[in-house]
Amino acid sequence: MTPKAFQDYYTDEFASCYGCGRMNKHGLQIKSFWDGNESVCHFQPKHYHTGGFPGYVYGGLIACLIDCHAAGTASAIKHRDSGREMGSDPPLRFVTASLHVDYLTPTPIGATLELRGNVKKIKGRKIIVGITLSAKGKVCAQGEVVAVQMPEDFSDD
Amino acid sequence: MTPKAFQDYYTDEFASCYGCGRMNKHGLQIKSFWDGNESVCHFQPKHYHTGGFPGYVYGGLIACLIDCHAAGTASAIKHRDSGREMGSDPPLRFVTASLHVDYLTPTPIGATLELRGNVKKIKGRKIIVGITLSAKGKVCAQGEVVAVQMPEDFSDD
Repeated sequence: MTPKAFQDYYTDEFASCYGCGRMNKHGLQIKSFWDGNESVCHFQPKHYHTGGFPGYVYGGLIACLIDCHAAGTASAIKHRDSGREMGSDPPLRFVTASLHVDYLTPTPIGATLELRGNVKKIKGRKIIVGITLSAKGKVCAQGEVVAVQMPEDFSDD
Repeated sequence: MTPKAFQDYYTDEFASCYGCGRMNKHGLQIKSFWDGNESVCHFQPKHYHTGGFPGYVYGGLIACLIDCHAAGTASAIKHRDSGREMGSDPPLRFVTASLHVDYLTPTPIGATLELRGNVKKIKGRKIIVGITLSAKGKVCAQGEVVAVQMPEDFSDD
């Protein structure tokens, strides 16, 4: 695995995400790395990240992990394809346009979760990332995220 | 609106969800009610629920809100259609089989969010719920959840 997380290259201005911002002390601090051509993220849920059924991980947390891991993967592949070092200027940042999660089987709480990301399609400013989430070697959820590269003059107007 | 939240009828055993369990003191404590034939949920994000871009709500939080509001709505409509009071025995509980969110525009942080749920389809044990999430009167995200009624002898085998 690469030594430094994708998210730790984000500039301070963009490092406050509740899911993956290193500067958000209340947040989940999700970290993503390259492992060859796949991106990988390990996450240990807290005991209180339970879902509606005792002993299993909250599906919303799984959605959070998939969201940030995929957006980080989109940024990383864009840097790689552009021959750019992560952290170089200007930032190549992505937002999530859509998120889809299929919950295949309940995810046991207590285990470290492993997410693996694969870039499925790149079209213009849009990158589609597929994610699997596993616990104890078993795939428990699958996700697909459409990430869109932000313009430098980002605003909501 | 109905006076008592759907989630507050869940039995103690199923009230520890990080998203909507009343007994999860670390959780989001999402609450859903009927407003006629629509379900409604209001949620005030914390200042630290920011996304990757300053001033906007984290998309993963939006996914959490949609997930729990939809699952609660599925349980509520099942009770209503069955002529059953919520909280009556045995529990009619649902889990999320799939979650889809389209992020239409950035959701400003600071505003109270309003989610409205509509039951789109009921087929056997499966209920499809559509959700809109608005801030300051503007729809910022749309979601669709496939919720599946759990058997009483729930296990992951």
